[in-house]
Amino acid sequence: MNPVEMIERKREGACLTSYEIAQFVKAVTDGSFQDCQLGAMLMAIYLKGMSPEETVALTMEMARSGDMLDLSGIQGIKVDKHSTGGVGDTTTLVLAPLVAACGAKVAKMSGRGLGHTGGTLDKLESIPGMSVSLTGEQFIRQVNQIGLAVIGQSGDLAPADKRLYALRDVTATVGSLPLVVSSILSKKIASGADAVVLDVKAGSGAIMPTLEKSLELARTMVDIGCRAGRKFSALVTDMDQPLGMYIGNALEVEEAIDVLSGRVQGPLKEVSLQLGGHMLLSAGLAQDMTQAVRMLEEAIRSGAGLRKLGDMIEWQGGDRRVAQDTGLLPKAPLVESLPSPATGYIAHMDTAAIGNAARALGAGRVRKDDAIDPAVGLVMKVRLGDYVEKGQPLLDMHIGQDSKKQACQALLDGSFVFAQQPPAPRPLIYEAVYSR
Amino acid sequence: MNPVEMIERKREGACLTSYEIAQFVKAVTDGSFQDCQLGAMLMAIYLKGMSPEETVALTMEMARSGDMLDLSGIQGIKVDKHSTGGVGDTTTLVLAPLVAACGAKVAKMSGRGLGHTGGTLDKLESIPGMSVSLTGEQFIRQVNQIGLAVIGQSGDLAPADKRLYALRDVTATVGSLPLVVSSILSKKIASGADAVVLDVKAGSGAIMPTLEKSLELARTMVDIGCRAGRKFSALVTDMDQPLGMYIGNALEVEEAIDVLSGRVQGPLKEVSLQLGGHMLLSAGLAQDMTQAVRMLEEAIRSGAGLRKLGDMIEWQGGDRRVAQDTGLLPKAPLVESLPSPATGYIAHMDTAAIGNAARALGAGRVRKDDAIDPAVGLVMKVRLGDYVEKGQPLLDMHIGQDSKKQACQALLDGSFVFAQQPPAPRPLIYEAVYSR
Repeated sequence: MNPVEMIERKREGACLTSYEIAQFVKAVTDGSFQDCQLGAMLMAIYLKGMSPEETVALTMEMARSGDMLDLSGIQGIKVDKHSTGGVGDTTTLVLAPLVAACGAKVAKMSGRGLGHTGGTLDKLESIPGMSVSLTGEQFIRQVNQIGLAVIGQSGDLAPADKRLYALRDVTATVGSLPLVVSSILSKKIASGADAVVLDVKAGSGAIMPTLEKSLELARTMVDIGCRAGRKFSALVTDMDQPLGMYIGNALEVEEAIDVLSGRVQGPLKEVSLQLGGHMLLSAGLAQDMTQAVRMLEEAIRSGAGLRKLGDMIEWQGGDRRVAQDTGLLPKAPLVESLPSPATGYIAHMDTAAIGNAARALGAGRVRKDDAIDPAVGLVMKVRLGDYVEKGQPLLDMHIGQDSKKQACQALLDGSFVFAQQPPAPRPLIYEAVYSR
Repeated sequence: MNPVEMIERKREGACLTSYEIAQFVKAVTDGSFQDCQLGAMLMAIYLKGMSPEETVALTMEMARSGDMLDLSGIQGIKVDKHSTGGVGDTTTLVLAPLVAACGAKVAKMSGRGLGHTGGTLDKLESIPGMSVSLTGEQFIRQVNQIGLAVIGQSGDLAPADKRLYALRDVTATVGSLPLVVSSILSKKIASGADAVVLDVKAGSGAIMPTLEKSLELARTMVDIGCRAGRKFSALVTDMDQPLGMYIGNALEVEEAIDVLSGRVQGPLKEVSLQLGGHMLLSAGLAQDMTQAVRMLEEAIRSGAGLRKLGDMIEWQGGDRRVAQDTGLLPKAPLVESLPSPATGYIAHMDTAAIGNAARALGAGRVRKDDAIDPAVGLVMKVRLGDYVEKGQPLLDMHIGQDSKKQACQALLDGSFVFAQQPPAPRPLIYEAVYSR
C-alpha cells in the first residue's frame, strides 16, 4: 500500500489495520513517507481519530521503531512514573528515593524542561558534580545496588515518535488524543518498565486545556497501556497553581530535600505520596494505599528516603552532602519580592504564566540551546484562597541577571486574579485510574 | 499570523479571512509554509471545506501569485475554453478555428496529456513543423491577425497553484472541490481571457467519480469564476465513452480535420458546436444558441473553419497542407484489430482504461519525461449500445513498437461490458450552467 492510499483511507475515517500501521511507522522511520504526506496524515488522524486498536498498534510500532531497553538484568519489579508536566512539580525527586527505600526498583529516564514546565534532569544537574548520563551497564548496576537511578534518555528510543513529535508541533496536530497517547506510551514501553504510574495534570498549568480533557487523556492512556500489555495506572492531579512553593532547579531540589527530611508538609508531599503509593501497589509491595502511604511516611521519618537520595547523588558523581545541607546548592545573588497589586482573596493563578516567568529568569530554555541558570527561579508566598493585602509579597524572584527581571515581571503581570470572596476549595487529586 | 495558527483555524472549521488567505498564498509562493504544514492545511481544507468567499479569495490570490497576462493588446472579446480532460476528446481543434472564423478572438493556452486524458499541445505537435511556443508578442500579433492561437503556458502563471498541485497529488487531497476549482480558475484568470466556457466531463473517463460531483464542480466553478469578476459558463458533457472515434495525437488531428471538412458527424462535432456556441454567446457574437450553432455550421460548410486551422498551422510554423491532406500526418507502421470477446450489446466502457491503453502504446506519458509517439493510438469501431458479434473488431490499435502492444491489450481486457439488452440511451450534454 502506498502512502497516498493510506492517507486516503484515514481521510475517509477508516480504521487502519495493524499491518497498515506497521507499514506507516516503518515509512515514518525510514523517511519514505514524505513530510507533506505526514502533515496530511497527522491532520486526518486529528480530525478522524483512531480506534483503541489503532492507537495500541501505533504505540507498539513506535516503541519498536528503535531500541527496546532490556532491563531484565535488574532484579525485582521495575516501576516508573511519567508526568504530563507541571510547575513547581518535583514529585520525582521526592517519590523516587522513597519508593526505592521501600524496596521497588526505580530505573527512570527523565526529560528536560519543556515550555513552561520544569524537567527532572535540569533539576538534578543543579546538584554540584551530578551526572545524568550513564551507560546502560552503569544504569543497571546502580539500580541493582541501590534500587534507584534517574538518567536522561539513552539509546535510540522510538525514533518514529521523534519525527512525528517534531512535525506535530508545526502542523497544529499536537492535541490529538491518539497521537499524544502513543507518543508518551511508546517511549515508556521502549524504556522497559514493568509498571508505570502516570501523573496527568489538570488546571491552568496543564498541557490539556480542560479537566475533562485531562480525565480523558488519563483514562485513554491507562486503557491503551493496558492493551499494550504493560501495567499502567494514572492520577489526575491539580495544576491550577504551582504544586510546591519553589519553582526553579536548585530551588526545587531544596524543596524536595525539605520534604524528604520531614520538615515540609503540603501538596507536593501529598501528591508525591499518592503517586509513590501507586508505584508500590503496582510493584506488589503494598496491599492497599493506606499501607503504601504508611510505608512512604515511615521512609521519611526514618531518614531512609533521604539516604537513598544521597546514595543516588553519590553514585551519579554528585556531592551527597547536599542532602543534609541545601546551603551547598547554587544560590541566586539577588532576591526580590513581587508585591500584590490588590487586596483580596487569590481566586486564580495563571500557572503556565508563572512557569514561563521562572523560565524567563533562566530556569528554563526559551530557545533550544539556551543555557540554564540552576540558581534562579521563584518562591511562592501564597496559595489559592489566601487573603492578601495590597503590597504584601506574592512571591520572591531569585534573580541571576538583573536584565532578565523585566521579562519575568511582564509575564507575572496579571497572572494573579483577586476576589472579595474566597474561591471554592479544589481537590488535589481528581481521579485515580487503574488498569483493568 | 503564523502557519500553525492558520492551520489551527482551518482545522476547527473556521472561515479564513481574505487577508489570511492572501498571507497563506504568499507563504506558499515564498516557501515559508513548510511542506508538512501544507500537507496538514490541504487535509484540513479537504475535510472542513471552504466557503465560496474563501474559494474566491484563494482563486484570486493564486492567480496573482505570478504573472497576470495582459491581453489588452488584442482587439475584441477574448474567449477561452477549458476541459477537465477526456479521452478521444479533441473539441479544441474543432471549435477554436470555427469560433475564430465567426469573429471571436481565441487566445488559448492549452496543456499536455495528463493521466489517461490527452492534451491539445501534444496533438498539435503531431503536425509536421508545428510549434506551440510563441513569445507574448508573437502570440498577441497572431491573435490580432488571424483571431486564433493555441500555445503552451507561457510566463510564470500561478506559481502558488503549481506548488499546491504537486502536493495535492501525493497527499490524497486532489478531489477537494475548493482546491480543484481554485486551481483551474486561477490559471484561467491569470491567462487573461474575458470569458471562459468550461467543459466538465462526467462518466467513466472523467476526473470526478460521479455525475453529481461533476455537476457540483461545474456549478461551483461558474459561481466562483463569476464572483471573481470574469464571465464563466459550463457544460457538463458525457465521458462515459470516448467522445470521438480516434484516440491519439495525429489520429485526433485527423478526426478534427474530418469534422471541420464536414465529412464526419457525431458526438465530437455536436459537443464542439455546443461549447463553441457558448463561446460565441459569451463573446456577444450571437443572440442565442440556435443562431450560434447555425454560424458554426456555416463556418464548416463554407470551409472558413478549416482555413482558420490552416492559417494557425502556418503561423505556428507547421505544414498547412495537412488541413487538406491528412495523409501528411505521421502514421503508425502496424494496425491491429481487437476482436470482441463476446456477443451482445455494449453496455459499458471503462473509458479511463481505454485512455490508459492508448497511453501505453505511446500516445501519452507514463513517466513525466517519456517521449510521445505522435502516430500511435486507438480507433474505436463501436459505441455504447452497439450490438456486436464475438470476434467482430471493437477497435483498431495503431502500434509503433510491437513491445508496447501487450500492456495496451492488458489495459483493454475487461474494459468493455456486454449485455443482452441495449443500455438506456445517455444524453451527450447533462447540463448547461450560466453565470448569474
